[in-house]
Amino acid sequence: MAERFDRIWHNARLATMRVDRPDLGEIEQGVVAIRDGRIVYAGAAADFPVDADAIQRIDCEGRWITPGLVDCHTHLVYGGNRAHEFELGLKGASYEEIARAGGGIVSTVAATRKASEAELIASALPRLDALIGEGATTVEIKSGYGLDAETEMRQLAAARSLGRQRRVTIRTSFLGAHALPVEADGDKDRYIDLVCKEMLPAVAEAGLADAVDAFMEGIAFSAEQTARVFEAARALGLPVKLHADQLSNLGGAALAATFSALSADHLEHTDEAGAAAMAKAGTVAVLLPGAFYFIRETQKPPVEAFRKHGVAMALATDCNPGSSPLTSLLLTMNMGATLFRMTVAECLAGITREGARALGVLDETGTLEAGKWCDLAIWDIERPAELVYRIGFNPLHRRVWRGQ
Amino acid sequence: MAERFDRIWHNARLATMRVDRPDLGEIEQGVVAIRDGRIVYAGAAADFPVDADAIQRIDCEGRWITPGLVDCHTHLVYGGNRAHEFELGLKGASYEEIARAGGGIVSTVAATRKASEAELIASALPRLDALIGEGATTVEIKSGYGLDAETEMRQLAAARSLGRQRRVTIRTSFLGAHALPVEADGDKDRYIDLVCKEMLPAVAEAGLADAVDAFMEGIAFSAEQTARVFEAARALGLPVKLHADQLSNLGGAALAATFSALSADHLEHTDEAGAAAMAKAGTVAVLLPGAFYFIRETQKPPVEAFRKHGVAMALATDCNPGSSPLTSLLLTMNMGATLFRMTVAECLAGITREGARALGVLDETGTLEAGKWCDLAIWDIERPAELVYRIGFNPLHRRVWRGQ
Ligand SMILES: [Zn+2]
Ligand SMILES: [Zn+2]
Repeated sequence: MAERFDRIWHNARLATMRVDRPDLGEIEQGVVAIRDGRIVYAGAAADFPVDADAIQRIDCEGRWITPGLVDCHTHLVYGGNRAHEFELGLKGASYEEIARAGGGIVSTVAATRKASEAELIASALPRLDALIGEGATTVEIKSGYGLDAETEMRQLAAARSLGRQRRVTIRTSFLGAHALPVEADGDKDRYIDLVCKEMLPAVAEAGLADAVDAFMEGIAFSAEQTARVFEAARALGLPVKLHADQLSNLGGAALAATFSALSADHLEHTDEAGAAAMAKAGTVAVLLPGAFYFIRETQKPPVEAFRKHGVAMALATDCNPGSSPLTSLLLTMNMGATLFRMTVAECLAGITREGARALGVLDETGTLEAGKWCDLAIWDIERPAELVYRIGFNPLHRRVWRGQ
Repeated sequence: MAERFDRIWHNARLATMRVDRPDLGEIEQGVVAIRDGRIVYAGAAADFPVDADAIQRIDCEGRWITPGLVDCHTHLVYGGNRAHEFELGLKGASYEEIARAGGGIVSTVAATRKASEAELIASALPRLDALIGEGATTVEIKSGYGLDAETEMRQLAAARSLGRQRRVTIRTSFLGAHALPVEADGDKDRYIDLVCKEMLPAVAEAGLADAVDAFMEGIAFSAEQTARVFEAARALGLPVKLHADQLSNLGGAALAATFSALSADHLEHTDEAGAAAMAKAGTVAVLLPGAFYFIRETQKPPVEAFRKHGVAMALATDCNPGSSPLTSLLLTMNMGATLFRMTVAECLAGITREGARALGVLDETGTLEAGKWCDLAIWDIERPAELVYRIGFNPLHRRVWRGQ
């Protein structure tokens, strides 16, 4: 008897992004067949039973199908915006003048603390919709603009709610160790105590975080403080990730590897030893060219060292109001190629397979493979390279999340 | 008796971009009133007759209105695309290897010559629609991928046709002197003869060009050859513009000024004498940060010198398959600010008023002023700086072309 599917996409070209296939794992004459929202078959039409039955058959007319896109690093939920600060900076205002005019992360923390959960959701939705409009099916969202237990939890709750208001998978990261709040009065150790002993346990108890993140940098927290946050996360069974080596090399990549972090992110100043440690630990390098571009950084992440040591590279928007007001994964790919010289295959893997790996959800999404959720992006293009090459153009034909 | 209008937009904030007002010429409580597609009043609600009558009244709910956007430099009509060449380059292929694989401008010329007018239109429409989708109401389109009379005219006819298929103003530029075709066998002077004596007169006779453009550069044409093209244009009563000083300073800006060119474009290598000459001639500096970004140029155009001498600065996409596959004016503004340190006011003027000036249509569009076409972009934003600050985000609420 013929096998029966819920839905079959046929006459499609597939970029399966399977890790066991070279390049994009392309299939010129492809079929995707699903049941209960999950892929049962994604492969060559020639190997697919001709008598397969389906409730719905969709003719893709030769269009390309990639996995649904993954944005594995965003700060999408926040209050206010910093357009005025940007405007002042272009007029030549100094960092101090902007701070005096109420700018900087302090302004975002103040606006986020003032915002209700409903307001945080309302202001984040257009940003999420921009990502979804380009084919994103999985989006990570961090806290880190509350810097007190109540606001951090409200940010995370807003993020979870976004995942119920749109057909998209949201993964949350608790980033209490993002910056020192004004009321901590310069005492970083005491604030880290608060993060580890009060905020994190409360967040974990409420089930609001899928991972724990920190910002290790001269202007943020030290290796020792970061390690304390990671120990606390480990004790609660939560995986970790790290904002590492963005502005200087403090050994963040290596520290992340020590804790078997899912990912280390930014990495402009990571050295080869850091890359080697990440490779050994299976820690993904999440590169954020939008922030590199926006803050006019000149030090590039060590892409060649990541290749040499076999570190998986993901790409993400880093969507945030201060250093990367970016809501396009397609543009992120172009920046990965143009600014970091990543290849087309690396860029596409970076916002699919490796993005999923950086979130610990590679067994659920990120490639076109049997058993995974049927998360698809279907494109009006002649070849996948167009997705990376074009700038400010969205050829998405249709997005599919969990089969629909 | 009360004055009667066709349509009134009220409860709007206006960025009039009027040259006689500071910054963006903002009006916090504004009204736009029109008749027969043209603006009759654009100004403060307080100065507008309370008993004004209109067939339709539109409540803008506090949204911002800017002039419809102007993209004053594109190569939007062409055959093929160069994504594969981009892909090869990222894999480390040399310029020679790419040329051997059929890349470079030669490949675009070949594909454009092969394409019918209908095919050129069909492939250009998605690019034009991307610009329109962000609020563009006026778009310049150049020829220059035919390099023979028949194909150049087909490109320009396709451009004219685009202006009939969409509600948008298309301005065309004949760019026969873009590159030397293969069949010219290295003889630039003889090809320029052909441009001046056969191609240009035929194009002018058919009414296909609103202006004449040329590419003056070591890899293209000399000052003397450019001057011949400009003399021929002048004899036919056509205004000129110039691709000048992009890769080296050959005095292109100064030459353009000598011919009272509408604009000189690119200008990365223009010196202060060139800027001074442009100011005197009223020649607009059209800056193209997309090409600067895509080819990873490091020499920035002399924005400070343009400011000092009072040269008007426009911004444009330079949309083309080889060096700027960009179809977003919003992103162009962000690049103008981020890469060239242009202010928010300069960026917004660059894609409205100064873009219109660079096309010689400032009396028809580009600002919100009585007598001009009612070309509007209405935005879901809190302040105009957001249009420049955000990256890969489109807050367009509605576009209006000639009143509709
Ligand atoms: Zn971040
Ligand atoms: Zn050009």
